[in-house]
Amino acid sequence: MPTLRQDPATRLWSIIATERGKRPDDFVRHDDAAERLPSRDEDCPFCPGNEHKTPEPVFTVYDPEAGDGAKWVVRVVPNKFPALVSPGEKGDTTRRIRNRLYREMDGIGEHEVVIETPDHSKTIATLSEEEVATVVRTYRDRFLALDASPWNQLIIIFRNQGEGAGTSLLHPHSQIIGTPVVPEEIRRRLEESQRYYDDLGTCVYCDILGNELKEKTRVVCENSGFVALCPFASTVPFEVWILPRRHASSFGVLSDGEVPLLGNLLRDVLQRMYHLLGNPDYNYVVRSAPHHSAGEPHFHWYVEILPRLTTRAGFEIGSGININVVVPEEAAAQLRKAE
Amino acid sequence: MPTLRQDPATRLWSIIATERGKRPDDFVRHDDAAERLPSRDEDCPFCPGNEHKTPEPVFTVYDPEAGDGAKWVVRVVPNKFPALVSPGEKGDTTRRIRNRLYREMDGIGEHEVVIETPDHSKTIATLSEEEVATVVRTYRDRFLALDASPWNQLIIIFRNQGEGAGTSLLHPHSQIIGTPVVPEEIRRRLEESQRYYDDLGTCVYCDILGNELKEKTRVVCENSGFVALCPFASTVPFEVWILPRRHASSFGVLSDGEVPLLGNLLRDVLQRMYHLLGNPDYNYVVRSAPHHSAGEPHFHWYVEILPRLTTRAGFEIGSGININVVVPEEAAAQLRKAE
Repeated sequence: MPTLRQDPATRLWSIIATERGKRPDDFVRHDDAAERLPSRDEDCPFCPGNEHKTPEPVFTVYDPEAGDGAKWVVRVVPNKFPALVSPGEKGDTTRRIRNRLYREMDGIGEHEVVIETPDHSKTIATLSEEEVATVVRTYRDRFLALDASPWNQLIIIFRNQGEGAGTSLLHPHSQIIGTPVVPEEIRRRLEESQRYYDDLGTCVYCDILGNELKEKTRVVCENSGFVALCPFASTVPFEVWILPRRHASSFGVLSDGEVPLLGNLLRDVLQRMYHLLGNPDYNYVVRSAPHHSAGEPHFHWYVEILPRLTTRAGFEIGSGININVVVPEEAAAQLRKAE
Repeated sequence: MPTLRQDPATRLWSIIATERGKRPDDFVRHDDAAERLPSRDEDCPFCPGNEHKTPEPVFTVYDPEAGDGAKWVVRVVPNKFPALVSPGEKGDTTRRIRNRLYREMDGIGEHEVVIETPDHSKTIATLSEEEVATVVRTYRDRFLALDASPWNQLIIIFRNQGEGAGTSLLHPHSQIIGTPVVPEEIRRRLEESQRYYDDLGTCVYCDILGNELKEKTRVVCENSGFVALCPFASTVPFEVWILPRRHASSFGVLSDGEVPLLGNLLRDVLQRMYHLLGNPDYNYVVRSAPHHSAGEPHFHWYVEILPRLTTRAGFEIGSGININVVVPEEAAAQLRKAE
């Protein structure tokens, strides 16, 4: 019989329905298109030599060994087709247009692209440990820069890997968006974790971490700073959370010492998925508290990795309940074995 | 500049980002695979002659002209791979398993498949007006049957059209799931509409309907029972809601007189999408109040149609804000012209 599981942090239910008869093997993709990508694609705006095809970078990391700062390793540029735009010096960031019962506002915020490497053919799973650490450090630095703008209420760092995950450009990149509102979705998560804190005086994510390290069945891998696990009420097959051991609600407090540790575990998990599932499409997102909730004792930032192996359909849209056809303990066991 | 729009019923924000440069033409699919489907597929478990491949039907509509009830036009069967299952006579429908901080329960509920026609090659847009009315009447009758079971808290009727919308079987069908919990997602919608009612003493959906019929710019088509419109804060390109003019929170109160009117408008909208967008993949879902909220003055059932033209990616997952690259007024204008 299927079971319903509730995430203690969000109170969201997932149906774990293994009767649908899927085995991990059913999700392996035998398409190695990404592996066949060239190191450089002449038409790719993110490839070296095409730097003029992107807006001016707001941040660049150069190869220290190249001398004269001539060779970049990570570039951050404004998105050419931004979902939200900076208001500049004079922008009114609080204006609401009221038209009968509707509310509308200018699309103010920020939208940056992190070009993770000059090499067109790579992905996080195939970059070196040091290269991934540089990407993570860039996330942290841009998070802090955007978080300092008064109009950004929430900073979302995310990565769309593969066309099935919504990317249109194959060159390895992540995106960062600052939003001028705290969305309902985020407020609800904060409220749920606050309610837990009110009841018990502890952070629900810290309690999850403690519980998982005792139970072990859902832990994928860990290092001295972070733990990767398949959450109890995983919403999709092979969902993984990377939780910092140190309690902090905002990603911005990631220390220099923690940067390579997060890079190490992020790369480790994505390598396991790459080998186990055949370079799957996935999204990941850094879930961090909004600007004005940094420092809260009840919220805990983490990285959520969601492989795109099944399709969210009418039931999930209509109910908000996800149907997951792989038991999280089984997913964790498979990921532990994969190397 | 992009704009942010807030749905007054849910308080969810959408970014309307036309800078991304998409025109309605960009979404036209030039793949007419569905049109090339045969009327009968020997391997399809939903096709006539293969009735033994499905579980026993719980409901059948026969062709009155065929005599002796030999020819079915709509069959409702339990899903062979159910997400939730009926507990039978003795099932304990309230049991929660508590394991440290986690809650788990048996996957109790119901999961039925509505086979909409014997003809493998059809879809709602290409069925006759009478055939669609029969499908809608079946929805209503099965809704009432499932709503009478004490373990079903919420009934979700939905349809996944095309592989991009999550279907694995191409034969025209819808699904109905009864869930043993009221999900957070639904509770939040009820709370928002209740808050509106507390403030103003009116149903927010009735107010939206009145406003749209005055403004006209977002109305697609209408008849004496229903109005189809692109919502102000549409979450995806060409999103359409079909709202009943008569206030009611539960789909179960759909009258015999309203059945063909809903069928008429559902078919009309889907025909417009079929012609304008080239038989697009889509999901639709009947959003109805949960069992114990039937009769509420603040909630209003409706059908939500979501074409799958763009992909929900990391930002949408992380923020709960959708990015929609087509202005709803433009989508409505295009759908009005399409016939």
